[in-house]
Amino acid sequence: MSATPVPSKPLPPGSTLGILGGGQLGRMLSQAASRLGFNVVILDPEENSPAGRVSQGQIVAAYDDPTALRVLGQTCQAVTFEFENVPAASIAQLAEGGALVAPGPRALAVAQDRVEEKTFLNGVGATTIDFAVVDSVEDLIAGLERLGTPALLKTRREGYDGKGQIWVTSAAMAADAWHAVGERPSVLEAKAAFVRELSVIAARGRDGQIAVYPLGENIHSGGVLKTTLAPAVVDAATQGRAEAIARGVLEGLDYVGVLGVELFDLGNGDLRVNEIAPRVHNTGHWTQDGCVCDQFEQHIRAIAGWPLGPTAAHAQVEMTNLLGDEVDQWRALAAEPDARLHLYGKAEARPGRKMAHVNRVKPL
Amino acid sequence: MSATPVPSKPLPPGSTLGILGGGQLGRMLSQAASRLGFNVVILDPEENSPAGRVSQGQIVAAYDDPTALRVLGQTCQAVTFEFENVPAASIAQLAEGGALVAPGPRALAVAQDRVEEKTFLNGVGATTIDFAVVDSVEDLIAGLERLGTPALLKTRREGYDGKGQIWVTSAAMAADAWHAVGERPSVLEAKAAFVRELSVIAARGRDGQIAVYPLGENIHSGGVLKTTLAPAVVDAATQGRAEAIARGVLEGLDYVGVLGVELFDLGNGDLRVNEIAPRVHNTGHWTQDGCVCDQFEQHIRAIAGWPLGPTAAHAQVEMTNLLGDEVDQWRALAAEPDARLHLYGKAEARPGRKMAHVNRVKPL
Repeated sequence: MSATPVPSKPLPPGSTLGILGGGQLGRMLSQAASRLGFNVVILDPEENSPAGRVSQGQIVAAYDDPTALRVLGQTCQAVTFEFENVPAASIAQLAEGGALVAPGPRALAVAQDRVEEKTFLNGVGATTIDFAVVDSVEDLIAGLERLGTPALLKTRREGYDGKGQIWVTSAAMAADAWHAVGERPSVLEAKAAFVRELSVIAARGRDGQIAVYPLGENIHSGGVLKTTLAPAVVDAATQGRAEAIARGVLEGLDYVGVLGVELFDLGNGDLRVNEIAPRVHNTGHWTQDGCVCDQFEQHIRAIAGWPLGPTAAHAQVEMTNLLGDEVDQWRALAAEPDARLHLYGKAEARPGRKMAHVNRVKPL
Repeated sequence: MSATPVPSKPLPPGSTLGILGGGQLGRMLSQAASRLGFNVVILDPEENSPAGRVSQGQIVAAYDDPTALRVLGQTCQAVTFEFENVPAASIAQLAEGGALVAPGPRALAVAQDRVEEKTFLNGVGATTIDFAVVDSVEDLIAGLERLGTPALLKTRREGYDGKGQIWVTSAAMAADAWHAVGERPSVLEAKAAFVRELSVIAARGRDGQIAVYPLGENIHSGGVLKTTLAPAVVDAATQGRAEAIARGVLEGLDYVGVLGVELFDLGNGDLRVNEIAPRVHNTGHWTQDGCVCDQFEQHIRAIAGWPLGPTAAHAQVEMTNLLGDEVDQWRALAAEPDARLHLYGKAEARPGRKMAHVNRVKPL
């Protein structure tokens, strides 16, 4: 583990921040940074990206382009990212340019490999569902025997929103499943007997300060988040357990920035960690209209060395993702009182693509 | 008065909106437009303006540059502005390019001339303080006789935040005062015996729908707004009178967009109109953190032909402007719970320059 970073002076307004990734998370991070008086430069291979269009500049290049990374590192006083699959070498090169990079390499390494992640999590008291490391079809069969069926086979690296994973319902389909994940190093997860899915969004500042938002309750559909209800209806003990989990993860990774932790509620608030995301998280979008300081501003505060903002909810929010042509509902949604629309400015509404979200806000 | 515009279809997300003026109002309008999925192009003679830095593009040219206006009018489906002293010829040229321009020429003509404005206002039941038209020192002396002293001499055109105006305390100083305003066509205003300054932010859509926010109470210092407290503590009758005034102005101008109305409370809610601003208004910044739909989004909704958003307050907000080097307080303000900072990204903190504002938010 890397040493705790020396608390540096906060970056003043007028500093330039870099963001790897020009999608909706980068866009909303950029907007939050602008509100705090920062200038923002985006690195994304897609020209005129959603985030680039609301930022001072965009460097159009691959995420591992050495020249682009050098320019970004020299232009920006701090650099962050909107997705976890940033090449480790890119982060190293940015840091060489003199920019503070947060979250750091340790968080990325852990988040990029499901076995590393689960091993780390269980080591800091953030207990996961039982799992087995799978490097061969024999490993898979042994894992199925130990964990029972059905069980979920996932590649160790990459894959999100249900991609790169397959439910294995019997030992007889082991060979096919192993083939389906490309015979790549994988992990087999026991089926979680959960009553609901929760998540907690938390942040840690450069000085070690920690801030945790109220839990959200999440409803997925087809492996993709559909709705978050927040603050979730939980007792204080459950909120406390989630906060302890988040704290363990943040401190264990010596983390700087916002992090999302997906949780299974096994009933009565008995929580297991599903996975972590070392970035702002779709299940935290409700904070935009439920909190004075949302997750995007919180992340910018953390990486800029500012004090963290308050996390209390001032409203009950139902966040709903608009996927693909669901975004065509904008006209009806705009007419709903108490609905706050957030559109991402994506030109093409491909099926399943996250195009926008709507926060329906009710007084607490 | 121009004819009521035919309600056109709302502009879909992905449309491009143009904004004349790249200061903080243009910046916050641009951010609101982006949230609704619009692309934004700024026209401002200052390169890399605060608004340009958070927009898809900026045309760097004078506000009356014919080529720039043609390009803007052809690029944008709708065009608006952040300040009222837009040349009338520019608006006409933009409209020729095919863009919807809102607010329209009538609102600008009225807002650009204090005598036009007061005459219009009194004609729609939005009673002003007594005034006299001053085209000579003789007019001024006659005005002082009728209105009493002290009285406030202001040029008919231009001037804001206390510029281009002078208090005349006796007939003996009439000649000097007339000289001080450059011997330009002016208006003399009686001293308003007000107990407090209020303002109301209101909007009218392309279809004639009207939305009015709760009143704010304003505290000025040196002719510049320092603080707005909102919702102001007023009885329902006062709020109702302010809404009737706003409605009269909006309908009288066949207005599309957000408009600010500054009011004198003479006591017991007896209101007089000080002035109107045909744009988003500093005294409406509280809505960013007190309402689901703030004045910036409301203005974008109106000019894009969308339904207007809700105007109810969900919080009590104290908005404070940070002028000049007061912006250096950002570090302390960032550490205040319930304070939401909005920095404008201006490089140079000249004395008195509006650099940022902070909304302090309390539950209602």
